[in-house]
Amino acid sequence: MKFSIERAVLLKAIAQAQSVVERRNTIPILANVLIEAEGDGVQFRATDLDIEVVDKAPAMVEKAGATTVSAVTLHEIVRKLPDGAQVQLSDDSAAGRLTVAAGRSNFQLATLPKEDFPVMASSEYGANFSADAGTLRRLFDKSKFAISTEETRYYLNGVYMHVATGEDGQALRCVATDGHRLARVDAPLPQGAETMPGVIVPRKTVNELRKLLDDDEAQIAVSVSETKVRFATPEITLTSKVIDGTFPDYTRVIPTGNTKKLEVDAAEFARAVDRVATVSSERSRAVKLSLDEDRLVLSVNAPDSGNAEEELAVAYADEHLDIGFNAKYLLEIASQVDRENAVFLFNSAGDPTLMREGSDTSALYVVMPMRV
Amino acid sequence: MKFSIERAVLLKAIAQAQSVVERRNTIPILANVLIEAEGDGVQFRATDLDIEVVDKAPAMVEKAGATTVSAVTLHEIVRKLPDGAQVQLSDDSAAGRLTVAAGRSNFQLATLPKEDFPVMASSEYGANFSADAGTLRRLFDKSKFAISTEETRYYLNGVYMHVATGEDGQALRCVATDGHRLARVDAPLPQGAETMPGVIVPRKTVNELRKLLDDDEAQIAVSVSETKVRFATPEITLTSKVIDGTFPDYTRVIPTGNTKKLEVDAAEFARAVDRVATVSSERSRAVKLSLDEDRLVLSVNAPDSGNAEEELAVAYADEHLDIGFNAKYLLEIASQVDRENAVFLFNSAGDPTLMREGSDTSALYVVMPMRV
Repeated sequence: MKFSIERAVLLKAIAQAQSVVERRNTIPILANVLIEAEGDGVQFRATDLDIEVVDKAPAMVEKAGATTVSAVTLHEIVRKLPDGAQVQLSDDSAAGRLTVAAGRSNFQLATLPKEDFPVMASSEYGANFSADAGTLRRLFDKSKFAISTEETRYYLNGVYMHVATGEDGQALRCVATDGHRLARVDAPLPQGAETMPGVIVPRKTVNELRKLLDDDEAQIAVSVSETKVRFATPEITLTSKVIDGTFPDYTRVIPTGNTKKLEVDAAEFARAVDRVATVSSERSRAVKLSLDEDRLVLSVNAPDSGNAEEELAVAYADEHLDIGFNAKYLLEIASQVDRENAVFLFNSAGDPTLMREGSDTSALYVVMPMRV
Repeated sequence: MKFSIERAVLLKAIAQAQSVVERRNTIPILANVLIEAEGDGVQFRATDLDIEVVDKAPAMVEKAGATTVSAVTLHEIVRKLPDGAQVQLSDDSAAGRLTVAAGRSNFQLATLPKEDFPVMASSEYGANFSADAGTLRRLFDKSKFAISTEETRYYLNGVYMHVATGEDGQALRCVATDGHRLARVDAPLPQGAETMPGVIVPRKTVNELRKLLDDDEAQIAVSVSETKVRFATPEITLTSKVIDGTFPDYTRVIPTGNTKKLEVDAAEFARAVDRVATVSSERSRAVKLSLDEDRLVLSVNAPDSGNAEEELAVAYADEHLDIGFNAKYLLEIASQVDRENAVFLFNSAGDPTLMREGSDTSALYVVMPMRV
């Protein structure tokens, strides 16, 4: 194998690939990236056995071939090469060395045979559709904060992507919950997604996917099977196993009879919650909301360190209500609101509370109260 | 105590004070800041028993008095208040509460009696002089990287500031070393500093002092005794105990007979060292310098992961020399060079090497080689 490639192109391709590589590997080959040169391009492939990313880049290929080399070391080297450099990579399989040369720099890196690299088995995808990056970004960005970190509840360690009937008909829906709060986000169902099985996309995949979604206009090819999901741009293909479990029936958690409506400026509300929570150093800080006509008082009482109170002008026309929430959960939910107003719908101090963004019904959040 | 103060002024004063407060305190009062209001100003005082910082700020004092309150909590609250807010602080000593009010926010913080706060004993300073911030910044910035982190060698855990005879006469000199490398930086001796005893300024004090030195033109009042050192601007006074120990005779470490001279572009050299060091993941990476006439080859050999080589055009007219250094030490020393050229003076592969910045003799570095 021998090829020459622009430093910036190489850096981008490896950066994406090496980010799925786990830093601590007991299996040496998993620390490596598989480099395959052929025709007028090169492929970089990396995996942690659950996720595989393949990144294609144009290159001047002098001799086709393939090898594997430490992803982190190669990435570090390329990152440190001067901008604009032309990089030559050539493999001496007999010596087990890959030479990386640029200008007056010359590196020989230890390789492992390409045959040892675990390429992910291909899959039959039952549904193939195209979605724009902006839509996917919104679906995952607005739901991922609620993903559970409890490893024993592995079926909650991801975002449940499935087809559902939303307020405006058929929808592509993402749901995440950790039992304390829940996020449900809808987008119009793309053509071809109707037959898609519901899948739980793991947290790491959600984070890797995010790197493909920066360009609003980009079209992402999505493929879904019972066991795998694939997201692809013309350059990058991200394939991931999905979580082998059943996502619980979340619809039972979403209250339908909440009638006490509070409307509040989301940013102002978030800042006030953040301020009053300061007096308590506990991890699960309870913030008390006291509601009266058009008036909200936020308060925190921490016997050791003090207490805090803040008043906000709001729209509220129902009876007096005192209700408490974990400050972190309130902050995270309030920060999902892109519009000006957050709309809270309460039932009682013991019941789950609903939150919406203004009159938009395509995103919906549930948060459990806590005793104050 | 009751006063009102601008949020930005309050934030700046507390930020400086709270930074000396240790995050983990077994003595509760040390987590607090002492607030003293009198006349037309307020003082914020914080300490870790070794360092004390006092920050003065203008305020509308309605009722003189003093109390102590958690430095971190107060800082967090003020940081989160909206910009431009006017903050009222009033102390209810009977209830043991300090009220912090701004707009519709209201906080009650637990206080501890001002009498319990350990105010640092005043000291007789044998030398008082004034130095501009830029000079002090250079003295400490260029030497502190060499401070030892070995707690058993406590007398090396700081910068030795003293009066010395430099190449251009009497000098205010800062020296730091960890046994592997040494930095010696001189500045013209300020008037009044002649009688100054040599003191070892602890690492934490050096870092806190740095925050006073951003404004080049500022004049810093420096006071030195056998046991303490004080740095003051009109607003902030930083007082610190010095390390109770004897700084070793560093002059014996500085080689005088090194004649093999290498001149190299400092930035280019640093980048090349950084690149070749990438192939090794060991903590103490050895970089080999191979010198021939006007030619330097940097190389690293890591049997497990590979090897790297880079050639640089340099000025060197002496005999062939191979010498190895810890990559981290070389990088740190090269990054001290503000001018274009780093000048290395070698003797042999086993002897300490000298480094200077171009023809400037006011800063000098020594680094021990390692076997390669």
